[in-house]
Amino acid sequence: MEMENCIFCKIVKKEVPADIVYENKDFLVFLSIEPRSPGHSLVIPKKHHRWVWDVPNIGEYFEVVKKIAHAQRKAFDTDFILSQVVGEEVHHAHIWVFPDQAVKGNKKDFEGNARRVRENI
Amino acid sequence: MEMENCIFCKIVKKEVPADIVYENKDFLVFLSIEPRSPGHSLVIPKKHHRWVWDVPNIGEYFEVVKKIAHAQRKAFDTDFILSQVVGEEVHHAHIWVFPDQAVKGNKKDFEGNARRVRENI
Repeated sequence: MEMENCIFCKIVKKEVPADIVYENKDFLVFLSIEPRSPGHSLVIPKKHHRWVWDVPNIGEYFEVVKKIAHAQRKAFDTDFILSQVVGEEVHHAHIWVFPDQAVKGNKKDFEGNARRVRENI
Repeated sequence: MEMENCIFCKIVKKEVPADIVYENKDFLVFLSIEPRSPGHSLVIPKKHHRWVWDVPNIGEYFEVVKKIAHAQRKAFDTDFILSQVVGEEVHHAHIWVFPDQAVKGNKKDFEGNARRVRENI
């Protein structure tokens, strides 16, 4: 299922590039283009859902968020990982997961930060 | 497992009062005393864990968050429910889940808001 003109659906189909950190059958993780901290990631369902709360396998969804949080902990040497569900900007369910802003690193080094998270999954 | 002097552990043990919205074997939901919007809830594991990301059954944890989000949708007539994981204030894992601030209602009517959420679970 795909929604026309949805930027996240296009990222899922690899029609639009993104710094991809992880994917499995149902979910895709890529770096935010407006990061609050190094490695700030978005976790999305591959199928188009308007809201996080409409995703049927929400338990599996947050298992992925936890996996990324643990990788960020190792990659950026912190225990403090934040997460947010908002959803007004892009109308495709997405969960932010990002380290505390006190961690060291350049949040704009997308390629390097994606690699650091990937290597710690 | 309980942590001495942890306010959330005391709420779990019913030693400290709270406006409880829902509970099951592993999780407890109660209203925030500093609500951003009517029905703003905290979802916590009954066992003391420092961080959300340390809770072993994270899938079940977010199934509860989703249950509360759906109840808030019905109770406050909105699709837009936000969630946040931070964790600096109280050192017991907790997830915020709360309706968009545009919903109607008095966010300080704790008793009424707790009842509205409970009745819609």
